Amino acid sequence: MKKNTTPVYYGDYLHLDKILSAQELQSEKYATAAHEETLFIIVHQVYELWFKQMLHELNTVLDVFTQEAVEDHQLSTVVHRLNRVIKIQKLLNDQISVMETMTPQEFLSFRDYLVPASGFQSIQFKMLEIKLGLKTQYRIDFDKQSFYQRLEPKDREFLQNMETKNSLFEMVNDWLERLPLLDFEDFKFWHLYEKATQEMLQSDREIIQQNETLTDEEKHKELTELGKTEASFNAIFDEAGYHTLLQEGHFRLSQKALMSALFIHQYCEEPVFNLPFQFLTCLTEIDENLTLWRYRHAMMVQRMLGTKIGTGGSSGHDYLKKTTESNRIFKDFFNMSTFLLPKEVLPALPVNVKKNLGFSLSSV
Amino acid sequence: MKKNTTPVYYGDYLHLDKILSAQELQSEKYATAAHEETLFIIVHQVYELWFKQMLHELNTVLDVFTQEAVEDHQLSTVVHRLNRVIKIQKLLNDQISVMETMTPQEFLSFRDYLVPASGFQSIQFKMLEIKLGLKTQYRIDFDKQSFYQRLEPKDREFLQNMETKNSLFEMVNDWLERLPLLDFEDFKFWHLYEKATQEMLQSDREIIQQNETLTDEEKHKELTELGKTEASFNAIFDEAGYHTLLQEGHFRLSQKALMSALFIHQYCEEPVFNLPFQFLTCLTEIDENLTLWRYRHAMMVQRMLGTKIGTGGSSGHDYLKKTTESNRIFKDFFNMSTFLLPKEVLPALPVNVKKNLGFSLSSV
Amino acid sequence: MKKNTTPVYYGDYLHLDKILSAQELQSEKYATAAHEETLFIIVHQVYELWFKQMLHELNTVLDVFTQEAVEDHQLSTVVHRLNRVIKIQKLLNDQISVMETMTPQEFLSFRDYLVPASGFQSIQFKMLEIKLGLKTQYRIDFDKQSFYQRLEPKDREFLQNMETKNSLFEMVNDWLERLPLLDFEDFKFWHLYEKATQEMLQSDREIIQQNETLTDEEKHKELTELGKTEASFNAIFDEAGYHTLLQEGHFRLSQKALMSALFIHQYCEEPVFNLPFQFLTCLTEIDENLTLWRYRHAMMVQRMLGTKIGTGGSSGHDYLKKTTESNRIFKDFFNMSTFLLPKEVLPALPVNVKKNLGFSLSSV
Amino acid sequence: MKKNTTPVYYGDYLHLDKILSAQELQSEKYATAAHEETLFIIVHQVYELWFKQMLHELNTVLDVFTQEAVEDHQLSTVVHRLNRVIKIQKLLNDQISVMETMTPQEFLSFRDYLVPASGFQSIQFKMLEIKLGLKTQYRIDFDKQSFYQRLEPKDREFLQNMETKNSLFEMVNDWLERLPLLDFEDFKFWHLYEKATQEMLQSDREIIQQNETLTDEEKHKELTELGKTEASFNAIFDEAGYHTLLQEGHFRLSQKALMSALFIHQYCEEPVFNLPFQFLTCLTEIDENLTLWRYRHAMMVQRMLGTKIGTGGSSGHDYLKKTTESNRIFKDFFNMSTFLLPKEVLPALPVNVKKNLGFSLSSV
Repeated sequence: MKKNTTPVYYGDYLHLDKILSAQELQSEKYATAAHEETLFIIVHQVYELWFKQMLHELNTVLDVFTQEAVEDHQLSTVVHRLNRVIKIQKLLNDQISVMETMTPQEFLSFRDYLVPASGFQSIQFKMLEIKLGLKTQYRIDFDKQSFYQRLEPKDREFLQNMETKNSLFEMVNDWLERLPLLDFEDFKFWHLYEKATQEMLQSDREIIQQNETLTDEEKHKELTELGKTEASFNAIFDEAGYHTLLQEGHFRLSQKALMSALFIHQYCEEPVFNLPFQFLTCLTEIDENLTLWRYRHAMMVQRMLGTKIGTGGSSGHDYLKKTTESNRIFKDFFNMSTFLLPKEVLPALPVNVKKNLGFSLSSV
Repeated sequence: MKKNTTPVYYGDYLHLDKILSAQELQSEKYATAAHEETLFIIVHQVYELWFKQMLHELNTVLDVFTQEAVEDHQLSTVVHRLNRVIKIQKLLNDQISVMETMTPQEFLSFRDYLVPASGFQSIQFKMLEIKLGLKTQYRIDFDKQSFYQRLEPKDREFLQNMETKNSLFEMVNDWLERLPLLDFEDFKFWHLYEKATQEMLQSDREIIQQNETLTDEEKHKELTELGKTEASFNAIFDEAGYHTLLQEGHFRLSQKALMSALFIHQYCEEPVFNLPFQFLTCLTEIDENLTLWRYRHAMMVQRMLGTKIGTGGSSGHDYLKKTTESNRIFKDFFNMSTFLLPKEVLPALPVNVKKNLGFSLSSV
Repeated sequence: MKKNTTPVYYGDYLHLDKILSAQELQSEKYATAAHEETLFIIVHQVYELWFKQMLHELNTVLDVFTQEAVEDHQLSTVVHRLNRVIKIQKLLNDQISVMETMTPQEFLSFRDYLVPASGFQSIQFKMLEIKLGLKTQYRIDFDKQSFYQRLEPKDREFLQNMETKNSLFEMVNDWLERLPLLDFEDFKFWHLYEKATQEMLQSDREIIQQNETLTDEEKHKELTELGKTEASFNAIFDEAGYHTLLQEGHFRLSQKALMSALFIHQYCEEPVFNLPFQFLTCLTEIDENLTLWRYRHAMMVQRMLGTKIGTGGSSGHDYLKKTTESNRIFKDFFNMSTFLLPKEVLPALPVNVKKNLGFSLSSV
Repeated sequence: MKKNTTPVYYGDYLHLDKILSAQELQSEKYATAAHEETLFIIVHQVYELWFKQMLHELNTVLDVFTQEAVEDHQLSTVVHRLNRVIKIQKLLNDQISVMETMTPQEFLSFRDYLVPASGFQSIQFKMLEIKLGLKTQYRIDFDKQSFYQRLEPKDREFLQNMETKNSLFEMVNDWLERLPLLDFEDFKFWHLYEKATQEMLQSDREIIQQNETLTDEEKHKELTELGKTEASFNAIFDEAGYHTLLQEGHFRLSQKALMSALFIHQYCEEPVFNLPFQFLTCLTEIDENLTLWRYRHAMMVQRMLGTKIGTGGSSGHDYLKKTTESNRIFKDFFNMSTFLLPKEVLPALPVNVKKNLGFSLSSV
């Protein structure tokens, strides 16, 4: 291994000249420096540095799934890097507590000088969303209109171009479809599965009907909910029915991809599914942390502004609250439990199926 | 100081015989022991121990506010103990990550044996809610009906009796009303305040109108929101108008209490307001952490059950999601920023006002 | 799947009658109740509940390694459960912040009534240590004498009996020895490894010698350190030399086990090593978290007592500080980096070696 | 309040052009880019941004204490800002978990290219230490020699100049000395205190002597420790004795300052001491978090390098481990509990003393 020929000095290596001279206060231009504006700037700069790191990891994950076959050792690297993304997300969530040391009154001392800048103008955050799979058509209505509104033309074009590329969601969907989990000659898994779910739903129906602590109204409501769950189950085996629910936004994954993901979740303890299961779990956690971040961020904004408008001219907290629930990317993994069966009622994987899987998975 | 006459042994002192023999698995009664049921039980037992500690702190806080006058050194103790409650809440929130190490499939191995037990049957959690101020009339509709539904008669009566007592919310409202912050002979604070807010709102209106990145539709929406904020401001000075908004659930504090709280927030850096401000901030954080806990808990339940029913026979996550936003107790403090002015435009507190306050506050 | 025949009620299921009646204050017996004694008791009871859960997980891990062969799907379960232990440890570490809300003065109000109880009497914590592998001979000198001193005879016997059983450390050592990683017919890994390390050490020597920012004294010191590292490297290939270092406490794993662990670390990205590497990493983290817990605990005790004696009659913080560094169990994994080579200089695993490994590993 | 005349755009405001172009990989210059070098750079850049924020807060705190009199409302601001520093420190500590997602092997891929850069060259971190009060004479021996060794001349001069200025430690010492807490005409506090401590020490002696679970050797050791504590107590009242202990490094605060700090701790619930007590507690926590950061950092370095040398040419973990214990700044507050009495045995503050204090404190 070669060595560097020029000695390295800490501050030069990190370009601290750039990093530490990038805090320029707006308040100083129009009045005296507002003490907390420095915090406001630094908090956002740290966010952007972490966003850059998350994109750095995500890009290599996308590279892996762009290839025709995903090797096991690549999946190992993918899981390793997504776990890093998750650790960074936890830090981002905790970082809100630092921002919250700024009182609303302190924020008011410089808020007006920032108009119309807004966190919605963070290009890197939008890149993260798009690359993960939150493209325009999946955004909530309000968001569809305003997503590109606030950006300068060059940024808008850059992101709109990015929307035309395959996202991680789409690549994962394709990869799941390619996995050979749906047909086994002698192993009638899906037939057994269908039978087991019917029994489970019937059992749930009885639990509700026999629960004396529920009012009639509540029972009625619960039975209606159960009916919907039953419809979801039926849809797994019915292409047309599934397609309808997909159109209605009930699912995002294709039927085939959902079935593969379900199979992996059911048999997650099988060594051959160890890495695929870790991978799907990482995606679920990343989505969950993103949702949690939006929620905590919305609470912080509300506490900071009340119903006052933000610097971008809109009362951001309303918007953020709406996006919290709706802008999920991998929600099908999040809802996967709906379709899960207890390990006890699952048919054991036959030896020849296991063997085939071991071989097949590493070649897709 | 006396000493104990009988030597103390660690395990006896902590009654570990009771604590460590209290994990009785349901799964073991009907099948083989489900490994994760132990985790499920212990997680909930730890929750209940912390709830007991939180009630222990809360009870002494209620005792202080039951008295006619609250001394400053008592407020010092109150803040100290509420900060302890906040630290415990953070732990409770982080504890969800331990529960999340149980996969949905592992939960299914014993879920059916727990019917119809439910976390909604935690008496201590309901005590916390009621004592803080979340009485039946403030609950969301669905919650009003079902809150007592699932409980055994003795527990129901116990809690219903508790609802007739004064909650912390009510006591704080009274205490704020008693503070002599609204009339000062020579200092026309509220008059100046009214004038300053008019100017601020006018300025906000201009920010919206001149923002070229907003569509007409968005501008219209923002101006409507601003109109509502303006109505809130006006209500502060208009007893009848305030009363209407209070009836509609827009406010919970009385007009007088809200004005006192606002005054404390505006002048929070004055030493005389140091403890009162810390106290109100604690209440806001406790409410925020409670909300965050409900939200994270709801996400965890969804991940665990999907749209399946819980052990209590209802799909808990829907319910929890609803309570997240609605069941706020001290939401007026949370929204206080709506009415805040930047420090720069506030009139300085006259010396004689400060002096009077120093004297008056310690005698209420 | 069967269902329960008797309805379950939350409070009965969790035995809250036992759990919530187990807080008996010593201060109340001799004076008035000290408010913070409740916190003190509950914090320790929560610790004990988590210890029970950790032991519950650890016991099943020990069961797996007691068997002659460890199947891959069992390793999957082991990693899953050890990750749960790690999450619990993080909670235990954060829990110290709750204890720290008790001021030293508040502790003094009841400290004298607890004599001579001590946290060193926690049987479950000692069980954890012993089962992980911290047996008497590996404890620091002071600890060797006092470990059993404070216990009642039945507790002492119980733990001494446990010391005669195989610990996780010993089982892991055996399992590593059994792995077929040291001899491959055509692949002279260890020969190549020896050559590569010689080059690396030579390169490190040059880095030190050419570093102009180091004083002569520092250079001398660093070169001496490098000499020790070189001796460690040489010992890997020299049975007698290794044995000497093992006797001196420099290593704990056997030479063969260390070499296997090193091989796994070097090729951790190979799918066949994915679970073994996760497993070794879990053990390292558990050890690190235990160390961190002791350190934070020692700081908390110092802050609480200064140089005063604790309830057990000894100034606990001195003791704790000593144990921090010394009582490591899996320190060889922690120090593994000493022997690691960059991926770039590693010889690629030949295909037939990979194939053999895939087969061999699942059969040991 | 004026408004900005030029519209602000998020990316321009935060100078993201500088921030996001400051990641220049060394590995790329000599070989192919090492994936994890980006993480390494960004983690350190985030550290430096937070250091800048901490210095920003610390500088205003120093400004306050440079003045002749510290007003109460200034102390309120000081406490608010130091609490922000503490929140940032918690984030810095948690950030280590992100760095730990880099495996030792990944680090080896670019380590050699960074020679001889080292974290010890962080000027901002050294500024923090010096401004808090960790000047050369208080550093441990090894540190005294090497602290300035690795720096470029201009950085060395800059820091050496800073050492000639008053640090926060010195300013706090002066402020404590100025507080009028040591002489009250009719209130013989220190006399009563001396009597109470004698009784407490005698009681502790009996606890040790009567403890049957201690060996004779342990008893001897404990009694020796108690003797030292007794000597510390005596020193408080004995100028010459105190001076000796101060010279030996047993204390850092002057005798008078220590007595004032002790008085504040004893009566921390008095409203007049509310802010001073919060202030001293903040300083203790900042010191504790700094220590914890060094410790966690040292563990991380050991895990990353084992006994290999770091990029700066020295095996950093040894050094770090040493600094952990020794480089305390406010250790006298940390050890304050040694001298604390339970609230129950303290004489009540007479009314006229309280009144005088209220007046006097705000004028110092």
